[in-house]
Amino acid sequence: MGSPVHRVSLGDTWSTQVHPDIESERYIQSFNVERLINILDGGAQNTALRRKVESIIHSDPEFSLKDNYFMTQNERYEAAVKRKFHLQTIAKRQGWSEGSPELYYSYRTLSGDLAFSIHMVFLKSLKSLGSEEQIAKWAPLCNDFQIIATYAQTELGHGTYLQGLETEATYDAATQEFVVHSPTMTATKWWPGDLGRSATHALVQAQLICSGARQGMHAFIVPIRSLQDHTPLPGVTVGDIGPKMGFHHIDHGFLRLDHVRIPRENMLSRFAQVLPDGTYLKVGSLQINYLSMVVMRVDLLLGEIIPMLQKACVIAIRYSVIRHQSSLRPSGPEVKILDYQTQQHKLLPQLATVYAFHFLASNLLKFFHSSYSAILNRDFSHLPELHALSAGIKALVSDLCLQGTELCRRACGGHGYSKLSGLPSLVSRVTASCTYEGENTVLYLQTARFLVKNYLQVHGSLGSTSQMFLPKSTAYLTTPYQARCPAQKAADFLHAKLYTAAWAHVAARLIKDSAHHLQTLMQSGADWDEAWNQSTVLHLQAAKAHCYYISVKNFTETLDKLENEPAIQQVLKRLCDLYALHSILTNSGDFLHDGFLSGTQVDAVRTAYLNLLLLIRKDAILLTDAFDFMDHCLNSALGCYDGNVYERLFHWAQRSPTNTQGNPAYEKYIKPLLQSWRSKL
Amino acid sequence: MGSPVHRVSLGDTWSTQVHPDIESERYIQSFNVERLINILDGGAQNTALRRKVESIIHSDPEFSLKDNYFMTQNERYEAAVKRKFHLQTIAKRQGWSEGSPELYYSYRTLSGDLAFSIHMVFLKSLKSLGSEEQIAKWAPLCNDFQIIATYAQTELGHGTYLQGLETEATYDAATQEFVVHSPTMTATKWWPGDLGRSATHALVQAQLICSGARQGMHAFIVPIRSLQDHTPLPGVTVGDIGPKMGFHHIDHGFLRLDHVRIPRENMLSRFAQVLPDGTYLKVGSLQINYLSMVVMRVDLLLGEIIPMLQKACVIAIRYSVIRHQSSLRPSGPEVKILDYQTQQHKLLPQLATVYAFHFLASNLLKFFHSSYSAILNRDFSHLPELHALSAGIKALVSDLCLQGTELCRRACGGHGYSKLSGLPSLVSRVTASCTYEGENTVLYLQTARFLVKNYLQVHGSLGSTSQMFLPKSTAYLTTPYQARCPAQKAADFLHAKLYTAAWAHVAARLIKDSAHHLQTLMQSGADWDEAWNQSTVLHLQAAKAHCYYISVKNFTETLDKLENEPAIQQVLKRLCDLYALHSILTNSGDFLHDGFLSGTQVDAVRTAYLNLLLLIRKDAILLTDAFDFMDHCLNSALGCYDGNVYERLFHWAQRSPTNTQGNPAYEKYIKPLLQSWRSKL
Repeated sequence: MGSPVHRVSLGDTWSTQVHPDIESERYIQSFNVERLINILDGGAQNTALRRKVESIIHSDPEFSLKDNYFMTQNERYEAAVKRKFHLQTIAKRQGWSEGSPELYYSYRTLSGDLAFSIHMVFLKSLKSLGSEEQIAKWAPLCNDFQIIATYAQTELGHGTYLQGLETEATYDAATQEFVVHSPTMTATKWWPGDLGRSATHALVQAQLICSGARQGMHAFIVPIRSLQDHTPLPGVTVGDIGPKMGFHHIDHGFLRLDHVRIPRENMLSRFAQVLPDGTYLKVGSLQINYLSMVVMRVDLLLGEIIPMLQKACVIAIRYSVIRHQSSLRPSGPEVKILDYQTQQHKLLPQLATVYAFHFLASNLLKFFHSSYSAILNRDFSHLPELHALSAGIKALVSDLCLQGTELCRRACGGHGYSKLSGLPSLVSRVTASCTYEGENTVLYLQTARFLVKNYLQVHGSLGSTSQMFLPKSTAYLTTPYQARCPAQKAADFLHAKLYTAAWAHVAARLIKDSAHHLQTLMQSGADWDEAWNQSTVLHLQAAKAHCYYISVKNFTETLDKLENEPAIQQVLKRLCDLYALHSILTNSGDFLHDGFLSGTQVDAVRTAYLNLLLLIRKDAILLTDAFDFMDHCLNSALGCYDGNVYERLFHWAQRSPTNTQGNPAYEKYIKPLLQSWRSKL
Repeated sequence: MGSPVHRVSLGDTWSTQVHPDIESERYIQSFNVERLINILDGGAQNTALRRKVESIIHSDPEFSLKDNYFMTQNERYEAAVKRKFHLQTIAKRQGWSEGSPELYYSYRTLSGDLAFSIHMVFLKSLKSLGSEEQIAKWAPLCNDFQIIATYAQTELGHGTYLQGLETEATYDAATQEFVVHSPTMTATKWWPGDLGRSATHALVQAQLICSGARQGMHAFIVPIRSLQDHTPLPGVTVGDIGPKMGFHHIDHGFLRLDHVRIPRENMLSRFAQVLPDGTYLKVGSLQINYLSMVVMRVDLLLGEIIPMLQKACVIAIRYSVIRHQSSLRPSGPEVKILDYQTQQHKLLPQLATVYAFHFLASNLLKFFHSSYSAILNRDFSHLPELHALSAGIKALVSDLCLQGTELCRRACGGHGYSKLSGLPSLVSRVTASCTYEGENTVLYLQTARFLVKNYLQVHGSLGSTSQMFLPKSTAYLTTPYQARCPAQKAADFLHAKLYTAAWAHVAARLIKDSAHHLQTLMQSGADWDEAWNQSTVLHLQAAKAHCYYISVKNFTETLDKLENEPAIQQVLKRLCDLYALHSILTNSGDFLHDGFLSGTQVDAVRTAYLNLLLLIRKDAILLTDAFDFMDHCLNSALGCYDGNVYERLFHWAQRSPTNTQGNPAYEKYIKPLLQSWRSKL
């Protein structure tokens, strides 16, 4: 069972033993949990390192998250700044450098509840957009926290569409300065993290104007707060954008610039320069810029989004073996709610999904790294595929992680509505991931453009098929597809090849349909843009199907590599089957549409699916233990390893300010109200 | 355009005119908005009365909601108590009595942001469960606020399953008292509103034990706080359950009772009594108890749940004509985001849904009132249907209102994540309605039991059909159904009879399948309870389909009654079509399963659906104006009538405590961090 460190139960003195209802779930182990932990960590050495970091972090009371649910936005911000300050001290002492696995694990174990995360985005952008001199000047200032920097792109009136940004940087050759200016209210920078109350410098995306010509978006380093006393510099209006659903610890800010002058050297100039006389020079390729958005999306999956659903599964499934409700038969004992088919139907597909996504994101990361090396060698051939894959996968993963996290929350009934369950903060945080770093609808449509383009490459403008080379992820578009699924009975649907082929069929059909719809509209007189807009609902559907196909295929390929781990392969195979069959059932219309599946076959899929629920139910607790979150990190009254749900809820509630700060409303309003009748006597 | 009162824009001095992008949406009116407002209000006289109440409330600064988003839980609670106190004063002055339409409209216009709402639930329960003497004693105390009462049913370890509640009330004949006691931690009452910090009395649901026998759940009036100084009475441990996702203004509480003694007269005794010697007498029927849960569910729909989605639609659709993004063609101007097909696809089905639900809930309320009269005359024949309808409709309405509200929120991009948009608080509040007053899965399964029972009544135990009398809502189960939908082209799907029949077909088939599945399991040896649990996923699906059928049918019947209002009938007919076709598309698998619809027909449904989006888009702003919410009540920086979105967001953010309360983190952590490098120099 590995290191006992992950069992630590928040030092609650009343929590002396594991609840028998959860202990019994761990008696029979059909697989080695520790081995699965190692696989998820990418090796036993990573597990060991992670646990070492966790024990350092969690033995330090400065890092405690336990009062988070009782804090105001201001208190959360201050605590996050404090933790970041303290972590810098520890990192220095321990020799953990920026980008080290130790700092990555620190971030994970603190649930990212740290200030100055956009500081690192600044640094990454500097390294990809800055010249060697600029990197040499600014990177050490960042690394030593001599400055605190943010990245300011989004504006009050402008988001995804970069060409629409209004902030201007006009070159003044007389002084060799740029005049950075927000010409309108809607040009106000809005949402950058760390901007509201922390940053001293901002990397501002602005329209470059030089020698009277507009040259498009470029990045400028703008000092915004005094390094002496932190007050806004002249011409700078800066502040916090106020209360949000989540991310209370981050000071998202606004920034208005009134003709702020910065030196010519502050425009990042790896790919474009303005010479002293105002001559504009474009240098090299801008495609590489693009890559920094891709890397952000790929990083988010494993670093931020997927752990939310993992934690929600841990909390809801653990709670579901402690909570008893009703009886399955008259006058029988109340049963664990996880024994109800409807509860299994809510939770176990989420567990399967988050396993699917862990392996999907891991492999996307590998593909990213190999493509990145090629790109550094000026081979851009993988960039369109990498972009389409990362966009679509980010959208699918964040959409389904949000759905799943909310389902887990609701599966805990009333207690899931209490912040002390830990679930509301997971939901309000993962929901943001559907919007930031590319709104999901926009991302799906970017993937769809790639798919339509690929389809038309192979099948010509109308119907003619040519065996063009396609990237690996869309190669299935060239395969002649089966008209009917050959499955005869429920058990046939437990074959990975069969359900992968089913998703390939559906994705290929939907891509074909959306491309044909587009062409039909154009033939009846619409231009490309109008036709595109009038077929986007179909493109969305096609892009989602493609991403489902990719995720199912990836999970089956991951299983193939586990042949030396038969017990683990077996349990993961069930999760893979469940993920695939659940996705078919929730999209059954797409499979029935052209008769690829019959109604009888869909019923067989459901039979196979319901049987899987019963099998996976037995291993459910072990499969959540395998995520190996410490109780401190889960920060949930419902989800602790020991299962002492009700004691913890009761004790935590006592600490709430609603109980500790008195009730001034009594003297002011309740007492006069209750006693007003006496005056009438 | 009716009274200008609903245009009031929160007295913002900088807001002098309506934004041209929203003004232009109101130029051409295909129908009379004021007339639609009257229809939604149930008559012009109601509109006038509502606006009168709104102008009284909103002209009074004591009722302002504008700082809500900046307050802590404690501050929200105190403000809600203050508003309730103030409203009592106004009501007395204006002569608004309990249960009057004026107080109903006050509640609506204050978004229910008032304390002591459970006080009224206590009163309703008293009136249905109490004897005449008990009502005569306690009701005046409630009405005059000589006591503040709550209703305490749910326990820490027990929710929906009443028989599982652990709290005990043991009769002591020696003193003629009940000893009310929480025997375990899990017996702690948990979640009752107004309990945490306000209530002086609780109606406690407890297991009655008298003369050594357990007699099941009964209701007891237990004094819990001193009327002199509000301290907990001896044996009472009471407090607040702490932070939650929403409802911050309500003090949800916990209550542990340690052998608390109350007089024999405090057991509500309309239907059951304990005589002085401990003899237990059951009087009359307990079925009527059941009715108070039904009335709560019916009340919630129009009073609490549906307005959340209405407001979300108003906010998101108004924002979508102000927000511009990208261009539909190269170098064209940025367009209103409501002109994108994907944005219409997100928002307009929500608008159609909330209209469908308004009429559905209105008619359910009428059916409730007529059944209630019958029940008072001891005719219980409608009770099973009323219960099944109200359970299923509450589940469908709250599920889809949550989905819709969240979709509206996400459709506003990053700004939808700001609390200042008003959308996060709508989402976090409507999400609770999926759990309280009956968790939705449990409710659907209650409806399913009714449906299976009805089905088996007609079709016998296996296949034989008899023309038994069925209630109106399930009469379609006796109709021989069409095997194939006769529609030939997209326009055919705009016939109300056609799509109502399609839903009837699907619901009937799913009910049949779930009943057969149950019987098959029983024939292979399972007992009823086991077979039921192993077919609940099918029952859920069948119950949802039934509710869809009811909601579609109800909308079409509402339209039939509007033949004297052709312009309004036309625009509502489009919404009805959109609601029905959207529901078919999102459940297309159910229609394709047995070949009732072909793939080609589903494509025709989509074509008709996409065409409707374009038609409804033109009237979208007017259709949201027709909900006639004042800006004060929407409390949204994005959703005001005048469309001045960005100015309002910017100005509201300035008032946030993150901007007004200084930044102590600077001196403590940021300054030392920034200056630590200097010490190294």
